Amino acid sequence: MSDYQAPTKDMLFVIRELASLDQINTMPGFEEATVDLVEAILEEAGQLAGEVIAPLNRIGDAKGTRVEDGRVIVAEEFISVYRQFVSDGWTSISQSTKHGGQGLPYLVGLAVEEMMQSACLAWSICTLLTQGAARAIEHHGDAELHALVLEKMVSGEWTGTMNLTEPQAGTDLAAVRSQAVPDGDGKGYRITGQKIFITWGDHDMTDNVIHLVLARLVGAPDGVKGLSLFVVPKFRIGADGSIGERNHVTPISVEHKLGIHGSPTCVLAFDDAYGYLLGEMNKGLACMFTMMNHARLSVGLEGVAISERAYQLALAYAKERVQGNKVGYDAAVTIIKHPDVRRMLMHMKSHIEAMRALTYVAAAHLDRAHHHPDAAVRTSEQARLDLLTPIVKGWCTETGQELTSIGLQVHGGMGYIEETGAAQYMRDARITTIYEGTTGIQAADLVGRKILRDRGVALQSLIVDIKAIDAELERHGDQLATIRTALGESVDDLVGASEWLFAHAGANDDVAGAISFNFLMLAGTLMGGWQLARAAVVAAECLAEGADDPSFYETKLVTARFFAEQALPLTGAYRKAVESGGDATMTLSEEQF
Amino acid sequence: MSDYQAPTKDMLFVIRELASLDQINTMPGFEEATVDLVEAILEEAGQLAGEVIAPLNRIGDAKGTRVEDGRVIVAEEFISVYRQFVSDGWTSISQSTKHGGQGLPYLVGLAVEEMMQSACLAWSICTLLTQGAARAIEHHGDAELHALVLEKMVSGEWTGTMNLTEPQAGTDLAAVRSQAVPDGDGKGYRITGQKIFITWGDHDMTDNVIHLVLARLVGAPDGVKGLSLFVVPKFRIGADGSIGERNHVTPISVEHKLGIHGSPTCVLAFDDAYGYLLGEMNKGLACMFTMMNHARLSVGLEGVAISERAYQLALAYAKERVQGNKVGYDAAVTIIKHPDVRRMLMHMKSHIEAMRALTYVAAAHLDRAHHHPDAAVRTSEQARLDLLTPIVKGWCTETGQELTSIGLQVHGGMGYIEETGAAQYMRDARITTIYEGTTGIQAADLVGRKILRDRGVALQSLIVDIKAIDAELERHGDQLATIRTALGESVDDLVGASEWLFAHAGANDDVAGAISFNFLMLAGTLMGGWQLARAAVVAAECLAEGADDPSFYETKLVTARFFAEQALPLTGAYRKAVESGGDATMTLSEEQF
Repeated sequence: MSDYQAPTKDMLFVIRELASLDQINTMPGFEEATVDLVEAILEEAGQLAGEVIAPLNRIGDAKGTRVEDGRVIVAEEFISVYRQFVSDGWTSISQSTKHGGQGLPYLVGLAVEEMMQSACLAWSICTLLTQGAARAIEHHGDAELHALVLEKMVSGEWTGTMNLTEPQAGTDLAAVRSQAVPDGDGKGYRITGQKIFITWGDHDMTDNVIHLVLARLVGAPDGVKGLSLFVVPKFRIGADGSIGERNHVTPISVEHKLGIHGSPTCVLAFDDAYGYLLGEMNKGLACMFTMMNHARLSVGLEGVAISERAYQLALAYAKERVQGNKVGYDAAVTIIKHPDVRRMLMHMKSHIEAMRALTYVAAAHLDRAHHHPDAAVRTSEQARLDLLTPIVKGWCTETGQELTSIGLQVHGGMGYIEETGAAQYMRDARITTIYEGTTGIQAADLVGRKILRDRGVALQSLIVDIKAIDAELERHGDQLATIRTALGESVDDLVGASEWLFAHAGANDDVAGAISFNFLMLAGTLMGGWQLARAAVVAAECLAEGADDPSFYETKLVTARFFAEQALPLTGAYRKAVESGGDATMTLSEEQF
Repeated sequence: MSDYQAPTKDMLFVIRELASLDQINTMPGFEEATVDLVEAILEEAGQLAGEVIAPLNRIGDAKGTRVEDGRVIVAEEFISVYRQFVSDGWTSISQSTKHGGQGLPYLVGLAVEEMMQSACLAWSICTLLTQGAARAIEHHGDAELHALVLEKMVSGEWTGTMNLTEPQAGTDLAAVRSQAVPDGDGKGYRITGQKIFITWGDHDMTDNVIHLVLARLVGAPDGVKGLSLFVVPKFRIGADGSIGERNHVTPISVEHKLGIHGSPTCVLAFDDAYGYLLGEMNKGLACMFTMMNHARLSVGLEGVAISERAYQLALAYAKERVQGNKVGYDAAVTIIKHPDVRRMLMHMKSHIEAMRALTYVAAAHLDRAHHHPDAAVRTSEQARLDLLTPIVKGWCTETGQELTSIGLQVHGGMGYIEETGAAQYMRDARITTIYEGTTGIQAADLVGRKILRDRGVALQSLIVDIKAIDAELERHGDQLATIRTALGESVDDLVGASEWLFAHAGANDDVAGAISFNFLMLAGTLMGGWQLARAAVVAAECLAEGADDPSFYETKLVTARFFAEQALPLTGAYRKAVESGGDATMTLSEEQF
């Protein structure tokens, strides 16, 4: 039996009840995704993830990757499974039918993506990057570029990468030095520079790899306003789509990382490599963000997915491991019967469900922002998505660190032994608060771009929505009373913290930065609790109506209550931290550290 | 230059001002440790740690350990440094002069131990276990056993181990199956069984290894009341102390662990191995706890020590790495200038200083509990130590997980690369919440044995002491106002949570277990804030008196304030979690997980 069982029941519940699939699946530009169809897709994807992909996880961790003779070698098992995955059409679920995709909502693609990430994160991120790169090319490329690379990327026949970072340019892309000059053919460009941390930067899984590369055209302005984005294939491509000679892109080395060993993280040397300009000259950063915002939701999802896998392993161990006595039992008991072990499992379970709900709801906003027939709705949905994206990315990945560590803890000493597998989840999860923008960057984005810049309009609208659940919670009386109380206090904490922010952010340039992490964690905790409160209302109603599978809804009520009682109180602590301001943070001289 | 600089200034401040060295160093049974002497010892130890031991850390991580031909091979660099360490007399600082130790307070030994743990945890735990085993033998062994092994263990010429765990007996030692039968010589015993997770269970650093082994005499009762403790040497020992034939103890394998790769974690097979009974028959567990309580403080200290090392690495990177612009600067700045990076560094710094102070203060209680001339004081000091031990072990190691992870985060993408070194600290730290009793066990010990069992007497006395600082904080007015407010609220949280505990613990057997983790974290956070508040009062007074080095005291004030403003608010969240009880934790059936 596989050690990963896709949580399709919870996924479907979230997709149907919290992310409102039925409001999305009939929008223009989507193939209609009925609940039955989605259920069938998730069943099949879950089987694939559990039976075929999940076994890759340990293999990739043990084998790692290496560079040999100018090419990157990855685990051979990764290659065969990838090719099957592509030929079965899994990469393109939520890509547009115009370029060979299946045209289903992103919401549905996200659920499939969660399964693949749970099954093998190192392997799954190749597809994440490919589809992100494809989206950037779809949005910013012309028909010629589309014809050249897009369908092959949508299908996964070729993979894509994201080449931003250079040794001196990580978070700060203004420092990018890679250069581009026009090629003699009058159409293309020649790119030269060194890029680092390029995930799946080279491999033999596919016949070609399409690199998106940030570089500076000769004579372009300094800073981010001089950056352009180029499409640089590993192998040159003929006008007929045929694969030509090797382009001048070479993997120099792969990193020796804490986790995701199965994925090659490359240093790539571009030496007069031929490429195509994507989008407008000097607008490269904007093009890149088409890819990045999507990718940030996907990385937030990784926090959910690895935690789910870690939970399943810890749960299985807790149900099997016999250790210690308990009043009322004659013999030693399985450790799940011990209260502190249950606390750890409930903590994992409730946070995973909260994070999943929040991430899927954000995906539904993305679908509506792109496909809703009413332009005004598209705008407001986009604003909500923009607000939620850094929260999903930041909070779900930070929480993923905690949950995978708890998963290890449930195993006691066995958790520290690599063969158990719990340690790998923790090691793999550790990258998620870093790549696609660190938590600090998410927090700065949230507080600066998403809240202060629009004077709190999007936040205010969100708070109104959260408060609207109060009447529904009240209607269920004692059953949901502790949830209602805790959520109410947490909303007050967010309101208080944001009032403080608007009152103090102007005082000096450091205030917003100093409090942004605590603000983000406050917001994330509240959003998670909000989604579980919504779930609890649905569950209470289903139980009252005598719906099938009452055990599922009873469980949901308990999970929501646990989160409300044990996690939501953190918002009070975050609020106090915010309201203490940045003074203690900023006072010391550098020598005093 | 070494990448570890011992924080002797803060250590001496804590030893002098918070742990009151001058009340300890003249007690009977100690060699007088003047401040000058202690300072000289710490200077020398710090040099040794930074220059000689710190370089071992990466070597041990990379080389690991292995079993070859029935013996364990560790990094050769570990061996030569260990032998120098022993010949320079560092292992026996706080051991009694009666058996060759130097008779200094444990408080002083602890500071030296912190340095060695910071420098190389994997290497340092060999001495931790040896000295723990020596203490058990000193307390429970007779003169003959003392003559046979004790001086050699105190000096470090031989090392010691702690053999508790078996595959079916981890936390629950009642399940131990190893058996002992009387030997034909009428004095010794023959021990048979398999032990796992034996740290430094075999190696060639020394001529002999002395195992303390929990086993069951034939015919002894079931459960923990049938366990006896045996001293089993790797090589038989002649009456004249000479080393004889190999005893029947064989290392079968070493574990492949997440961290502390340099230390061998062995499976040991005892096959009719010759051993000596230590202490009374069937009282083995009590003997083991002599060793364990000491070891728990030392493991709590590991949380401090690894965090300190992680902080130094992160700080150096933050001062050196140039990335991003900042208002008021013409060019890109070092990342320590960015508020969120400073927040991470302040979080690390303030927590490390809080944990160090708490751990050293606990060590001072241990010294007084053992050496105070007044028996009544010894009793009350022991009660305080007993109460603080699970808090130090649990809170400092849980916090160590968080801090080493933040240390990695400060590095951004570089943190995920193993060569940077930040990842190793996180991997190494991960064992500390597990060995010597998991956090769950510490929490159960705190709430059950240390609070409920004595009806809160020890806790009440502690709360009185914490409240006593309020008047001193008040005296300093605005300067310490936010510390005073936050500490006051946190004390109320502990009082409220303990009142809740006494009111509800009787309701059913699961309540105390379900809330124990949150109770421990509440207590730890408060204790840390209390110690920093004490430090702030001292600092304010020193500044008012115009003491030398005002920058140190100003820094301490800021650090204490940061902790009060940003960490102490967590006690409110922990209190709410406690007061929500165990219902949501215990409600689900096992199938509902």
